[in-house]
Formats: sequence, structure tokens, C-alpha cells
Amino acid sequence: MAKAAQNAVQGERCCEPVTSAALSEGDAIALADTFKALADPARLRLLSLVANASSGEACACDLVDPVGRSQPTVSHHLSMLVDAGFLSREKRGKWAWYRVVPERLEFLRSVLVS
Amino acid sequence: MAKAAQNAVQGERCCEPVTSAALSEGDAIALADTFKALADPARLRLLSLVANASSGEACACDLVDPVGRSQPTVSHHLSMLVDAGFLSREKRGKWAWYRVVPERLEFLRSVLVS
Repeated sequence: MAKAAQNAVQGERCCEPVTSAALSEGDAIALADTFKALADPARLRLLSLVANASSGEACACDLVDPVGRSQPTVSHHLSMLVDAGFLSREKRGKWAWYRVVPERLEFLRSVLVS
Repeated sequence: MAKAAQNAVQGERCCEPVTSAALSEGDAIALADTFKALADPARLRLLSLVANASSGEACACDLVDPVGRSQPTVSHHLSMLVDAGFLSREKRGKWAWYRVVPERLEFLRSVLVS
């Protein structure tokens, strides 16, 4: 897991709101990596599909068709979302199941307080 | 100005919260463009420097040294933040002055509601 994501999951946040203090270069690099995870249409759609799964979790096997990409591409994007801390993954049998990590969304919301 | 930014400034939002409905492909493309504007350390630092300017606005002339990039590079990044709707720009004499657009930060916060 990427360092920034680890920090977020552990509750250690890299950054104050961007409007409350000038970002250091190191914090800006960590935060830019977090935004990069959401700067792709396929990843945003995957995040919203997992978030809206009726049981609160989605199997990778059910995410390929709605996004219209190949399975390796979908797996790659899901891994990026896991690395950035937005999704958690649990392996069961041959498939992986994903859930949204609400704390990670809340972290980004806190950075964007105006 | 990019279409997504125009929409945000005009109060027409492209997207419901990602957790409340599966994003359409078009909305995901527009939203990914918005996140791309923040997916760069120099742009995040510029946004935080403008947000923390004591008078509420910052001259481009005062943003080059703190970011440690060339003036053309800083101008390019500032333009991207303006195009994405995060900064407004006012030309006075030979310099441009920038302010944060709080509504744009609030828009992104609304998309990330968990």
C-alpha cells in the first residue's frame, strides 16, 4: 500500500486543509498522488459502482461489464484505488471483493474545506 | 474555460456524490478532468498559496519563488487551475491576480460525500 494511503487508513493525515496553510512540497506530492487515483474516468466509475453495490461490496467479476474495459485493465484500476486507500479488498475463492473506505473520502473532503 | 468548470461556476453540477449513484461515462470524464487539475504537486501548492494570501488574493509575481518553478511553468499551472474553476483571475496592469473559488472546492466536497 502506498505511504499516503497507509497514513490515511491509520488516521495520520498528511495535510491540513489547503486553505488553512501553505502545503509543503512533501505534503503536496503525497496529496497529488491521492488526487491522481481519482483523475481517471474508469477509476471514478469503479469507485461509484462499488459504492452503490446493494450489499455494500462488489465482486471484481461484476465490475468488468459495466465499465467496458478488459479484466486486466479493471484489475489494475481497482488496485490503484486500493493502493490510494479508497477501496478495501478481500479475497474469497478465485475472486476479490471490494468495499469503499469512507474515511478516505472524508480525508479528501477535509483537505478541500474552503 | 473548460465545460466542467463553467458548469460548476454556473452552479450546474455534473455529478451526484459518487456514493449515491453510479457515474455515467460522460460525468466520469468531466469529473476526472477536475481531479486532474489537483493531481499535481505544483498546482496544489499554488492553490494553497493563493488560499493563504493575507489579502485573499495573490499576484502571479509573488507565486514564482515559493513554488521554485519558472514563470512560464507557474503561469501554465495557474491557467489550468483557472480553467478547472478553482481560481479566478483578474488582470491589473502587467500582472494577474488570483483568488480561490470556494464554490469549486465545495463542489468537489459534495461529490466525495460518503
